[in-house]
Order: sequence, then structure tokens, then C-alpha cells
Amino acid sequence: MTFQAPESLSEQIAQHLEQRIVTRDLKPGSRIQELKVSGDLNVSRGSVREALLILERRHLIDIFPRRGAVVSSLTVASVNSLYDIYIDLLCMLGRKVIERWSGDELGGVMGRVREVEAVIQAVNSTGPDAAEKVIDAGFGVMRYAYGLVDNPFLEETLENFRPAISRTYFVALESFRGGIGQTAVFFSRLGDAAVSGDVDRMQSAIKAFGEHQRQQVLSTLKEEESA
Amino acid sequence: MTFQAPESLSEQIAQHLEQRIVTRDLKPGSRIQELKVSGDLNVSRGSVREALLILERRHLIDIFPRRGAVVSSLTVASVNSLYDIYIDLLCMLGRKVIERWSGDELGGVMGRVREVEAVIQAVNSTGPDAAEKVIDAGFGVMRYAYGLVDNPFLEETLENFRPAISRTYFVALESFRGGIGQTAVFFSRLGDAAVSGDVDRMQSAIKAFGEHQRQQVLSTLKEEESA
Repeated sequence: MTFQAPESLSEQIAQHLEQRIVTRDLKPGSRIQELKVSGDLNVSRGSVREALLILERRHLIDIFPRRGAVVSSLTVASVNSLYDIYIDLLCMLGRKVIERWSGDELGGVMGRVREVEAVIQAVNSTGPDAAEKVIDAGFGVMRYAYGLVDNPFLEETLENFRPAISRTYFVALESFRGGIGQTAVFFSRLGDAAVSGDVDRMQSAIKAFGEHQRQQVLSTLKEEESA
Repeated sequence: MTFQAPESLSEQIAQHLEQRIVTRDLKPGSRIQELKVSGDLNVSRGSVREALLILERRHLIDIFPRRGAVVSSLTVASVNSLYDIYIDLLCMLGRKVIERWSGDELGGVMGRVREVEAVIQAVNSTGPDAAEKVIDAGFGVMRYAYGLVDNPFLEETLENFRPAISRTYFVALESFRGGIGQTAVFFSRLGDAAVSGDVDRMQSAIKAFGEHQRQQVLSTLKEEESA
């Protein structure tokens, strides 16, 4: 049994706001007022300011001198910029896994992929949280890879992008629900590529997956914009 | 003429501490005590806490629950992790410049490279700040590329790594002073690669440059460790 340090107050406030931003309860472009948050949650303004710095680091808000904090935009351009760097960092993660490990350890990646496939099999794809479960399981594969690659800078950078990526998944949640079967195919390709130990194949599998998700998000966003 | 918003107090505190960490006046592994900084600088503890979050984002300190802030380590392993992701992100920057632009705009990159070369020509390589000037001019090329690529996530991520990279340069400052002529050769290769519009050539030039700097830092660090 391990005891974990409780999250700091500012981290708790950040997670509360993060949840609201990711689900778009707090809309892109809307202002987050320190004083209001501090009153609503009955916490000090200092703790709110720290929470805002954490959210800025996670690419969910922009902080402007004097104007304060604004939920970062969610547009075709911003989604493209986000996926450009995210896919690139995932490719680096995949490449490092294969450069550093072989055989048995790569089999461990396959084990994680099987878990995702099991989740996909188990969820009722029409259930209310099917997509969320599959998305979480997908991030689980990424976290397993962190342990293999052991680059704290890469892990931190990818983790800081995760909330912004989650927000884009939320945009395309309906498409994700409809396409869960297709997601299984991508994970299976990823697992095969890992076991093959072939860097190019791994990067192609990651790119194909990333680009598929980018397109799902972009097409939903374009529908919203024209609605 | 443009008016710039003054840096916030927490940003000013962060820059003060950053300078001390980069020059290793504050040593890797040493604790930064909120109360002490707040007393020394006559600022509130809240502002110091915000400054520490900014420095954590810039990869210069780690914040541990209860233990507080510690200057992040500077070891062979951490330098390798840092250069792995930094070189990869620079390659992405270079690739995007070439994918997005051609002809005239790529000539602009060459213009910036010529500026670095002029700085290298002008500095007396034995002068006290020769290396710093060349390093600054090098970052200038990177900042010019941000404008061409227009990916705020990539820019922010690279900018957040800049202080940690600067700290490693500071480790190898003597070697940099001695090798300034060699630096000119790397910049010239970079400029030629940009003008050629050849992605592979660009990435090779960036990797060669990055690996050269990594080796300078690592060999100085190993000498220090065995001293």
C-alpha cells in the first residue's frame, strides 16, 4: 500500500476548472475571473492565481497582462497546431520505445494494447461512457510507454498536452462513439508495430491514428462552425 | 513605437531566480525556500509561489509536496533527456519551415544566419561575453523560425526549454568560447539547408548541430564529475 500526498489546493482548483474547460462547460474565449472563482469556491485569490498558471501550462487558458485569464480558443487552426506537435511527440515516444527495448519489453506494450482491445470489446458502444473508457485506456498505453522511455521532459511535455487533446476528443465524442470499432483496428496496428521492432512501421501507425483523430475533430468542429 | 506591458511581479521574481539557476549560482539539487526568497526580495509569499510555478514550467526546478522547490538536477542522464526532446522539437521547427515556405521566405532564414555569422566575426572570441552573444544570436534564428511556422504550441514548448538549454551552455561555456569558429560552420550549413528547401538536409544539419552541443556539454559535465 502506498500513501500519496494529497493534491495541493491550487492543483485541486486547477482540476476543477480543467474539467469544466475540457467538457466545454467553460467555452473557448470566455474569461475566467480570479475574484469570481475565489468567491465561488471559497478559496484565496492566491490559490486561484496558482491554479491559472497550472492551466496555462496545460494549454487550456491564456493569461494576458491586465486582461487576465481567457479559455484558449478551439479553432481549425489551433487544433491543427495542437495535433502537429502532439503527433510528433507521440512518434518520438514510439521511436524511443523501439530504440531502447526489444523482445519481452515490447511484448509489454502489446499487453497494454490487449487491455484497450478488451475495454473496446467490453463496453457497450452505445453506453454513455463508452468513448471515455476507450480514450482513458488509450492514454494508459501512452503512460506505459513513459516508463519504458524514461525521459521526464518528454513525459511532462506530453502530459501537459493531454488536457487540450482531451478537450478536442470531447468535441468529437459522438464520432468517437460511432467509430469505436475502428479505434480497435488502430490499436491493433500499433501493437503489431511495437512487437515488430520496426521504427518506421511504429511511426506510420502512430501518424495514421493521430491523423484519423485529427480529422474526426476537425470535421465535427467545421460542422459546428457552419451550424 | 510599441508599449509593452511590464512583466508581472511573479515573472520578475522568476527571471531573477532563473538567472541564478542558469549561471549555477543556485546549484542543482539546492532547495529554494519560499520564505527566504520572499524576505530577501521583500515580496509576498504568493508571488514567490507563482514564480516557482513559472520556473517549474521552464524545467529549472521540481516542486515536491511538502519538501518544496528544488533546483532540477544537471547530470549526464538529464542532459541526454533534455537534448533528445530539444533536438527533436528543433527538427520539427525546421521541417515545418520548409513545408510551409519556399524561395524568398527561406532566404529570410539565410538573412538571420548571416547575422549570426556577423556576430561571430565581430566578437573577440576571447572577450568575456563572446559566447553569450553568439548563443543569443543563435536563439534569434529560432525565434525568426517561430514566425514562419506559426504554431503557438511548438513555440511555447521550445521557449520553455530555452532556459534549461541555456544552463547547459553555461556548463560548457569555456568549450563554447574555444569553439566559436566551429559554430560558424554549423550555422552556415543550417542556412544552406534552409535555402535548399530539402527537409532531410535541414534535419541533418539541425541534428549535427544539436549533437555537437550535447557532446560539448556532456564532456564538460563528465570532467566536472570526475574532478
